[in-house]
Amino acid sequence: MISSKSLLYQKIAGNIEQQIREEVWKVGDKLPSIRAICREQGVSMSTAMQAYLELERKALIESRPQSGFYVSRSPLMRLGVPATSRPKKTASDEQVTELIDRVYSHLGKKDLTQFSLGAPAKELLPIPKLNKAMLQAMREMPDSGTGYEEIQGNLRLRQQIARWSFAWGSQLGAGDLITTAGTMNALSFSLMAVTKPGDTIAVESPVYFGILQLSRSLGLKVLEIPTHPITGIELDALKKELPKISCCLVVANFNNPLGSLMPDENKKALVELMEKNNIPLIEDDLYGDVYFGDHRPASCKTYDKAGLVLWCGSVSKTLAPGYRVGWVAPGRFKEKLLRLKMLHAISSTSITQEVVARFLESGRYEHHLRKLRQTLHTNSLQYIRAIGDYFPDNTKVSKPDGGFVLWVEMDKKIDSAAMFDQLLKQSISIAPGRMFSLQNQFNHCMRLSYGMLWNEALDRKLKLLGRTVREFS
Amino acid sequence: MISSKSLLYQKIAGNIEQQIREEVWKVGDKLPSIRAICREQGVSMSTAMQAYLELERKALIESRPQSGFYVSRSPLMRLGVPATSRPKKTASDEQVTELIDRVYSHLGKKDLTQFSLGAPAKELLPIPKLNKAMLQAMREMPDSGTGYEEIQGNLRLRQQIARWSFAWGSQLGAGDLITTAGTMNALSFSLMAVTKPGDTIAVESPVYFGILQLSRSLGLKVLEIPTHPITGIELDALKKELPKISCCLVVANFNNPLGSLMPDENKKALVELMEKNNIPLIEDDLYGDVYFGDHRPASCKTYDKAGLVLWCGSVSKTLAPGYRVGWVAPGRFKEKLLRLKMLHAISSTSITQEVVARFLESGRYEHHLRKLRQTLHTNSLQYIRAIGDYFPDNTKVSKPDGGFVLWVEMDKKIDSAAMFDQLLKQSISIAPGRMFSLQNQFNHCMRLSYGMLWNEALDRKLKLLGRTVREFS
Repeated sequence: MISSKSLLYQKIAGNIEQQIREEVWKVGDKLPSIRAICREQGVSMSTAMQAYLELERKALIESRPQSGFYVSRSPLMRLGVPATSRPKKTASDEQVTELIDRVYSHLGKKDLTQFSLGAPAKELLPIPKLNKAMLQAMREMPDSGTGYEEIQGNLRLRQQIARWSFAWGSQLGAGDLITTAGTMNALSFSLMAVTKPGDTIAVESPVYFGILQLSRSLGLKVLEIPTHPITGIELDALKKELPKISCCLVVANFNNPLGSLMPDENKKALVELMEKNNIPLIEDDLYGDVYFGDHRPASCKTYDKAGLVLWCGSVSKTLAPGYRVGWVAPGRFKEKLLRLKMLHAISSTSITQEVVARFLESGRYEHHLRKLRQTLHTNSLQYIRAIGDYFPDNTKVSKPDGGFVLWVEMDKKIDSAAMFDQLLKQSISIAPGRMFSLQNQFNHCMRLSYGMLWNEALDRKLKLLGRTVREFS
Repeated sequence: MISSKSLLYQKIAGNIEQQIREEVWKVGDKLPSIRAICREQGVSMSTAMQAYLELERKALIESRPQSGFYVSRSPLMRLGVPATSRPKKTASDEQVTELIDRVYSHLGKKDLTQFSLGAPAKELLPIPKLNKAMLQAMREMPDSGTGYEEIQGNLRLRQQIARWSFAWGSQLGAGDLITTAGTMNALSFSLMAVTKPGDTIAVESPVYFGILQLSRSLGLKVLEIPTHPITGIELDALKKELPKISCCLVVANFNNPLGSLMPDENKKALVELMEKNNIPLIEDDLYGDVYFGDHRPASCKTYDKAGLVLWCGSVSKTLAPGYRVGWVAPGRFKEKLLRLKMLHAISSTSITQEVVARFLESGRYEHHLRKLRQTLHTNSLQYIRAIGDYFPDNTKVSKPDGGFVLWVEMDKKIDSAAMFDQLLKQSISIAPGRMFSLQNQFNHCMRLSYGMLWNEALDRKLKLLGRTVREFS
């Protein structure tokens, strides 16, 4: 869990956190005193204290006055994890449009606590620094970004994304990438490139409703594949369905809404499986940069030898949703993708691409991400702690190692769509589970976003939410 | 030809220009002396002189030393206009991809004279003023444009476009508009909303190749309808084909590549025809603001009572192609369009929408357009003059009353695609006529863009071009 760039106190905290997870220290155990830490680790009092404060902030330990620090009865360990999903084995062409529209119609409302929103709050974005880069771009671009960008996209940006991808073992060059107006735009072109109306595609279950709706709108049938909340799509289940499908689309890193992370060996096996059967794999890697572990997880693209993986990403969840800067590395489908982009959009916005390129170049992106990841990790733990405190004991919750969202499974008799209406009256918005499937399942689940600044008001809202869950149980 | 906001000298020049067009003054006639103009019109010597310089700039008159001003042997009147096109009456699903790719592959080259480019050169864009508006937007938007814009698009921008459209009699409100990432993006969503793969659509012949390619990529068959270089699509011809088509797409104002302008009564008749047959009409009104007459031509949307017209536009040809700011007023297809935008793009770039909104609000857009129109009008006349001077006598040329492009018809035996390759060696790029149809026609035609700053170098390039045309004749 520790980055080589962490500060000393973070390293110590990280070590203790790992020991707690491995139950070297069990719930209720008294931890070594500050003084003992100083002696054992050869650090200052303030460093040792900072390490303990960090662990307290993550709700992993608690201090008892006049006594010392104890391992919390951590909900992270107490609450169960939802089981692997069991969708039907037939492709569906149903819709959940009405419910999605209902949830979406409340998205703009400022007085609502938007647990339903899948994007970072503006307090988490580096706005002044982005503005500075925008100013520089305006000054230094020959046409200040007023002219058409080349169809393939800003070269500097493509170079930077290629370089960025080296960190997790991808071998991309600037020529392998095409920029798009965000990830959904990249997915849309990718689906158009490798499928035709009437085809069947395989996706995780549950999965982001936008992917389901987009596929339906392109006339595709959708096969939902059993997916585990920790390790992602079940490869054995997928394998059986290969004869039916013309494409598979996965969010391997921190699936929305599950937060599941496919182990790198599963990604490798998935890519080999697709290669063996000559089936394209679209990878939505929108959340890969928001990992809580000590390194960026690989992408499926990392293992792509046959050019069958279309790797899609953007800065919409980490930097600036409104910039509409995304990309795709389409492998052997590059010419098709380029043509689709030219026909449907000609080019992407010039200046925002340049700003993101400069942000990556200067190292500011990495710096910003380090902070963002820490904030979101702490948030996720606070949410889980609050769910443990306020929700019924039979609540199950995902334990994401990255991303923005938690998947909460409640009592079987709960209808989270009905609960949504009730919660609106308390100025709370959630994303009901049924939105994330075309099979009328997950009614007793919901997705909660933790992409906001943590504060006591949020804690109170989670308490209110927990009370409503109890009422509906 | 005279705007109420024109300066005095422009009014005088406009009057004389009209008299020349109406042959009150014929080629070779001596015009009244400067002194006579002063006396008759009650203006100063410098005003009268400015009026004559303006007319000289437009190549309508010429001064002879020690003698006075004479009506030029104006090529505008001498050169013939191409005849109405006669495409085949069967829908085509051919492609001209290879040629288009060949032309596109040279678009980025700085040393080429890009007669093939359909966009304004950066010298014609108000870049410093746009940058100022961008700075203000960054400062005054709560999130500096980093957050998602609402799906329908920036409200201020939609209000301004609605207000703008009042000028030519449209009755749009902000709620009727959806912003898009440019016009092609608006056309793409519009086609997706009103057609399904296998359908047939009717378009002008010739028409912008992007429209042909986009339609083919969506699995549509394309029926090309006879079109007149001055008055646009032939309504009688279209009428006969109505049973075959599920949609018609027109560039009523300054069709690219013809520059044709449908008379407003034709637009009205077209809309009534579509309404009677309950067929949607997609209107690409990308060039409507670049008129050379005294008022903005109406749009088909102006006459739309049934909500069947999807009116598409953008600022890509007038303000900033790289901003990717466009829109559609989709009439009764609004919900479908909104959903398509949400699925394929989520939203458009926030900050560039705000900049355009502010530009419209402040009146700077109108101010800029006035200058741009004058520049382009003069350019078009200079091009026609140069074609008259340097091209063979059997050359025919469109006489656009707006837009960016001329359509040139040459000797039947010319293959403009072959000429394209030859011209590259002289650092000249043209758009061969065959690009603008799916029926392997217009081989002896080409499209020339005049969206550049006029200068002697450009005149020399047109001379070189004319020499090559002679060689190929």
